[in-house]
Amino acid sequence: MTGGTIYGVGLGPGDPELMSVRADRLLRNARHVAFFRKAGRAGQARRIVDANIAPEAIEFPMEYPVTTEIPLGDPRYNQILSGFYEDCAAHLRGLANQGEDVVVLCEGDPFFYGSFMHLHSRLAGVVQVEVVPAITGMSAAWTATGQPVTWGDDVLTVLPGTLAEEELVDHMQRTDALVVMKIGRNLAKVKRALDRAGLSERAWLVEYAAMAGQTVTRLVESRCETAPYFSILIVHGQGRRP
Amino acid sequence: MTGGTIYGVGLGPGDPELMSVRADRLLRNARHVAFFRKAGRAGQARRIVDANIAPEAIEFPMEYPVTTEIPLGDPRYNQILSGFYEDCAAHLRGLANQGEDVVVLCEGDPFFYGSFMHLHSRLAGVVQVEVVPAITGMSAAWTATGQPVTWGDDVLTVLPGTLAEEELVDHMQRTDALVVMKIGRNLAKVKRALDRAGLSERAWLVEYAAMAGQTVTRLVESRCETAPYFSILIVHGQGRRP
Ligand SMILES: C[S@@+](CC[C@H](N)C(=O)[O-])C[C@H]1O[C@@H](n2cnc3c(N)ncnc32)[C@H](O)[C@@H]1O
Ligand SMILES: C[S@@+](CC[C@H](N)C(=O)[O-])C[C@H]1O[C@@H](n2cnc3c(N)ncnc32)[C@H](O)[C@@H]1O
Repeated sequence: MTGGTIYGVGLGPGDPELMSVRADRLLRNARHVAFFRKAGRAGQARRIVDANIAPEAIEFPMEYPVTTEIPLGDPRYNQILSGFYEDCAAHLRGLANQGEDVVVLCEGDPFFYGSFMHLHSRLAGVVQVEVVPAITGMSAAWTATGQPVTWGDDVLTVLPGTLAEEELVDHMQRTDALVVMKIGRNLAKVKRALDRAGLSERAWLVEYAAMAGQTVTRLVESRCETAPYFSILIVHGQGRRP
Repeated sequence: MTGGTIYGVGLGPGDPELMSVRADRLLRNARHVAFFRKAGRAGQARRIVDANIAPEAIEFPMEYPVTTEIPLGDPRYNQILSGFYEDCAAHLRGLANQGEDVVVLCEGDPFFYGSFMHLHSRLAGVVQVEVVPAITGMSAAWTATGQPVTWGDDVLTVLPGTLAEEELVDHMQRTDALVVMKIGRNLAKVKRALDRAGLSERAWLVEYAAMAGQTVTRLVESRCETAPYFSILIVHGQGRRP
């Protein structure tokens, strides 16, 4: 393939110093920088790179048409999002075809529940795409608790808080260490599931891991029914430790 | 607390460019650098930082007294390792008490199945300890496969290949996306478990992710009974994707 390359660049959990040396280098040299954001917001990924981005870089903000207004189950949700991703991918493809490289900013690791994946699936094999892995939000979250997440033979389960309560309980009962992502409005349900799995006492809620405003709270001390978008729940494993 | 700080610094999966900007900065300024290695080996963590470490840095290699010679179940294994970690921790504590900072090199993320955890548990609360998270080996492995690991509501399970075959099968049957760590001599058992869980066709074996000699193979095309220490198995999730 000729033409430019689309780089899906993971930026890590939020602190610009937790970006990789490669991400930093790609950003400083980037002429085109694309990123997702909610309409009217700066965009978390864009904010992380404030100090790294070249002043002459051409920015392409990709604004989500819907996020929480339409329920996930509604068929329109998929349709609208799918059209949106198509449009974004078409724009990036156009740039690559003109020989331009584009850096797409990604929160955390691009291939771990990332939005970039929806561009990747539309661009891979069509233009050159390269992905730069990064520190995940969950790594920053367990680091913030000051305790290791997995020891020896521990099993780690990562659950999206969007699952049904029954499914959450079922998985929680069978794991040694636990991460729950996408807490937000699912917090009350996740709390009930942890209670039923007997894990509430061991659970920690980390908001804004490695970002301004980071908080680390024992779940039993949290009185809230919802949490911010950037929240992760951690239960540490207790495996073999010589 | 006064005195120096012990930094547990994650270096990422192997490629020095995948180190964080913070890890790079701490290393360039470090007067004391400690790292684990097998007797007679350079040590993978030490190798990653060849170009970052200051020439005048004082190095403290911590050589494992046993690794694979004594079976994990043998009580002597725990005793010997425990004494070893005590000695290492005592040395680092001594340096911190003299006001010296020490950077301890960690492969991948320090709090994710890392050896540093055994020093951390002996030093935290006694001297100042700080942990710098990093890109995990598994992030590098799924990036190497060129496909996202988790979509939408996918559940991700991380299993150590050291578990019994029954346990492996049990967990494999209940997850959407799968990572198996610590493959090595467990490969034949892990293969049998994947077969029984109906996942062999979807499994990828990644050796030396983001290191020299990286390979990515479909499991059904691998004829080996064992894999190198630095091997990870990935089964990608297939969740919702607009
Ligand atoms: C769409 S997923 C993206 C995950 C990201 N690609 C990663 O590697 O962490 C968004 C979810 O990630 C979690 N998350 C990511 N970064 C976080 C951070 N710095 N602090 C807390 N939660 C975070 C939250 O649970 C959030 O709902
Ligand atoms: C003791 S654990 C350490 C994990 C490390 N702390 C991390 O965050 O990835 C060692 C296991 O990690 C996996 N691993 C770590 N880095 C790897 C890499 N670059 N390539 C393949 N496997 C790796 C292998 O399965 C290996 O047996």
